[in-house]
Amino acid sequence: MKSYLFAPGPTPVPENVLLRMAAPIIHHREKVFSDLFGEVREGLKYLFQTKQEVLILTASGTGAMEGAVSNLFSKGDQVLVVRAGKFGQRWGELAEAFGLSPVYADFPWGEPADPEKIKQLLDENPAVKGVLIQASETSTGVMHPIREIAEITAPRQDVVLVVDGITAVGVFEMPMDAWGIDVVVTGSQKALMLPPGLAFISLSEKAWRMAEQSDIPRYYFDLKKHLDSAQKNQTPYTPAISLIIGLHEVLSMLMEEGLENVFTRHHRLAEATREAVKAMGLQLFAKASPSDALTAVQMPEGIDGIELKKTFLERYDMVVAGGQNQIKGKIIRIAHLGYFDPMDMFQVIGALEMSLHKLGYPVELGSGLKVLSEKLA
Amino acid sequence: MKSYLFAPGPTPVPENVLLRMAAPIIHHREKVFSDLFGEVREGLKYLFQTKQEVLILTASGTGAMEGAVSNLFSKGDQVLVVRAGKFGQRWGELAEAFGLSPVYADFPWGEPADPEKIKQLLDENPAVKGVLIQASETSTGVMHPIREIAEITAPRQDVVLVVDGITAVGVFEMPMDAWGIDVVVTGSQKALMLPPGLAFISLSEKAWRMAEQSDIPRYYFDLKKHLDSAQKNQTPYTPAISLIIGLHEVLSMLMEEGLENVFTRHHRLAEATREAVKAMGLQLFAKASPSDALTAVQMPEGIDGIELKKTFLERYDMVVAGGQNQIKGKIIRIAHLGYFDPMDMFQVIGALEMSLHKLGYPVELGSGLKVLSEKLA
Repeated sequence: MKSYLFAPGPTPVPENVLLRMAAPIIHHREKVFSDLFGEVREGLKYLFQTKQEVLILTASGTGAMEGAVSNLFSKGDQVLVVRAGKFGQRWGELAEAFGLSPVYADFPWGEPADPEKIKQLLDENPAVKGVLIQASETSTGVMHPIREIAEITAPRQDVVLVVDGITAVGVFEMPMDAWGIDVVVTGSQKALMLPPGLAFISLSEKAWRMAEQSDIPRYYFDLKKHLDSAQKNQTPYTPAISLIIGLHEVLSMLMEEGLENVFTRHHRLAEATREAVKAMGLQLFAKASPSDALTAVQMPEGIDGIELKKTFLERYDMVVAGGQNQIKGKIIRIAHLGYFDPMDMFQVIGALEMSLHKLGYPVELGSGLKVLSEKLA
Repeated sequence: MKSYLFAPGPTPVPENVLLRMAAPIIHHREKVFSDLFGEVREGLKYLFQTKQEVLILTASGTGAMEGAVSNLFSKGDQVLVVRAGKFGQRWGELAEAFGLSPVYADFPWGEPADPEKIKQLLDENPAVKGVLIQASETSTGVMHPIREIAEITAPRQDVVLVVDGITAVGVFEMPMDAWGIDVVVTGSQKALMLPPGLAFISLSEKAWRMAEQSDIPRYYFDLKKHLDSAQKNQTPYTPAISLIIGLHEVLSMLMEEGLENVFTRHHRLAEATREAVKAMGLQLFAKASPSDALTAVQMPEGIDGIELKKTFLERYDMVVAGGQNQIKGKIIRIAHLGYFDPMDMFQVIGALEMSLHKLGYPVELGSGLKVLSEKLA
């Protein structure tokens, strides 16, 4: 009868945001919109922890990833692509599609990138102009050590650090300016609690300088054009107006809660979920450095992740995510980023216990819930 | 107290559509979404009057225009770009951004393209691989003779006709397959009565064949990838889910009304608006072939379009569009595409009469309304 959404994007949209977006549409070339857009710009800078402009693209997050690749680099440029999951692969596909020469830093799915390895590859490949990475690899539930990697890239004047923060921005601490990250990308349907359809990208001064040299053809994702418009509280092309209105509401909520509290809430939910999962005799897929955005649970012997996901859906009308590509069926992924609070986690851990029980896995009912309760009390 | 929107995009969104989009978000990789997506695909084929797939992009209409350019052509290719307004210019900007060699067919703003001239240019430039044009030039309110131009391009095996139908699809008759149009593009925020954020593009078999030769780098707008996903009721990247749910509702409304009736309604509102405007002593900006999507009204001696637009807004909280680029201040544009019926037109014509009166233009109050009433009775 009731439906539940625990996938790492789209995440649930708060009711007040849904209702605000359901108001009659307004015109984007009028003052009422520009005024709101100005406030949104400030809110996004707060969220990204940057003084730079945060550009709003009407696109999925992948559109902003493309914008990073097509605006910063030139055909033939070497880039270092960190691959430790499906979204790392996407950076590689983008780099190849635009004629770059990627050097791959591959790490096993489920493990974080090793900064030492990245430093070594940069030393070995002095022509590399950028490091492309995820802050939180959504396909594996692993957090990469962005701070450490930024310490390696920041002093190099000809290397930019390009971070896909799609399940990181608004989830955990990643101050763009303070850490010296050059590009941060995110999307609307994760910690921003909106429907998908907006992507965001911010560039450091170093990145803007590099963009001046780029020769890749582009138009819709021409970031300089977006910057010029943004400074006039506008967009170069008709934006997804209703989503930007929702964004205004969401940013107000995040500012009211306070970014530190938002991070603490995510960490608390994530920690409790991880401990509850372990208390049920299950293992995390993340060998280290699990992301506070989502928990990837390794399927135990004899349990098929596809069957488990189906059980969640059929018995509890609850959507969790499965594994992608080579880990399909091997994991399920439980989201706790965005509009989630402790009460929500009882639902998903309860459903996990009962679903595993139903599939014949020897779980002690209540074992996960007990630990969850202890952790969240 | 009440607000009114008569700009040619975004256009008003029906209340039932707003409410449907305000329902809790669903996940795009689940059956509930795929089933809905399958119905949407059928509805879009009906709307485009084609057997081809209509691809849904999460982007503004410009994104689909870029998709046409970057998927069909190769660097250095000659294309014939029809420019008779701001959106014709956009085709030119896109062609240049992607390294094509545009041949320009320029016509005065306010006039339709001359098919004879296009035929002549195609004969003189046998290397031209595509004609890029608007069906309805939103900046001038003029309709180009797409049917006649398609008769010229259809027999040429190496020339595609690429039509920006952003204010044409769902407004007036333009059957893609029957007329032999190769590419049709539209956006969500016009006749489709949705917020902006979705763009649509459909390719003929000839266009898909040409796309196989294209060497322009692309990723987010790689149409072949969108086609492969669409055939599985999916999108390659997370789509704007809530807008696609709204689209499902809107397509049901259009199918229930029937496309022929939709076209008749638009024509009736457009004719009545044009006659009402003329009855007030004003002239249409379109010298011929006015579009049924919107009416561009030439400002009479002594009336500044910017002032008039401002008067609409300040006195009646009504948004109409002004002129763009070189005709800024010279026209206002009144929309009648999408969720409009005869009652709406009384509001905008009433406001036009009163606003002109307020600005000192010698309009006989009621003169436009009388003709509107006669035409719509």
